[in-house]
Amino acid sequence: MPTPPPSMAPRMTALILRVLTFAFLVASLAILTTDTTTLEIRDEVFKIRFKDVYSYRYMLAAIVFGIAYTVLQVAFTLNHIVKRNAETSGDGNLVFDFYGDKVISYMLATGAAAAIGATKDMKPLLTALGVSNSFLNKGYASASLLLLGFVCTAMLSVLSSYALPKKV
Amino acid sequence: MPTPPPSMAPRMTALILRVLTFAFLVASLAILTTDTTTLEIRDEVFKIRFKDVYSYRYMLAAIVFGIAYTVLQVAFTLNHIVKRNAETSGDGNLVFDFYGDKVISYMLATGAAAAIGATKDMKPLLTALGVSNSFLNKGYASASLLLLGFVCTAMLSVLSSYALPKKV
Repeated sequence: MPTPPPSMAPRMTALILRVLTFAFLVASLAILTTDTTTLEIRDEVFKIRFKDVYSYRYMLAAIVFGIAYTVLQVAFTLNHIVKRNAETSGDGNLVFDFYGDKVISYMLATGAAAAIGATKDMKPLLTALGVSNSFLNKGYASASLLLLGFVCTAMLSVLSSYALPKKV
Repeated sequence: MPTPPPSMAPRMTALILRVLTFAFLVASLAILTTDTTTLEIRDEVFKIRFKDVYSYRYMLAAIVFGIAYTVLQVAFTLNHIVKRNAETSGDGNLVFDFYGDKVISYMLATGAAAAIGATKDMKPLLTALGVSNSFLNKGYASASLLLLGFVCTAMLSVLSSYALPKKV
């Protein structure tokens, strides 16, 4: 098998980072959406779902946008690789990558931050109410995976900033 | 007074954005550090400070780093303007601007997100305990100003990405 030309190297790095992002986000989504518990107060049983925590809802939105964007970018990259026209990439695409990576990385960062902040500060209050630790720990686990997805996207954002065509 | 040469325009835009960031962050800091309340439980009075909320502590760290970085950058820019050597700016400076703006904008975004997420989700729990709404509302106010500071820094990050010298 021949080695790919040098111009493909940054594209392959980006592809690997996008696949990693995708894996982290899907794992984060799976943990988040199965995060439920029950709370018993005076013989009444309440079901608590992740949707009852506002920060987790925002985290869900961030993950879903992140997955949609990442799938789109992987499709673009594969299309490019299959057609072997690495050199014909237009400036419009690079500008889209730049703003897309930037906006999505801010979304993932704020989603993880909101969930971690809310979980940390709610923990003593909810534990006193009798909410199981596993509910909050799954929230942490989901947010941590989202944070790893953010780290990959932040690296992609650095790559796409360097690839940006000069304005002048 | 002569109009500045064209090469000064992006520098002036950046300076205005940095001064705005500084103003938002100082206002956010002032509101956050004066955010205290008292809570009475069974004749015992507890003092609640912003430091008792973990997310607010992280927000404080983000604001302080943001202010320090912004002051440094304003000092660099003024030094540059006074010396009128806009053209001699080295690549090292541009790379520092790029990574600095990027890291600080992520810090400000996550600081605001953690504080807003925690405040929103703690509100029903703390209100039930008898914590005054003004404590949480001041938290929101501080986080909102921080969010405005983030928006300015995100714009600076776009500018510094475009100014980045090409790797190749």
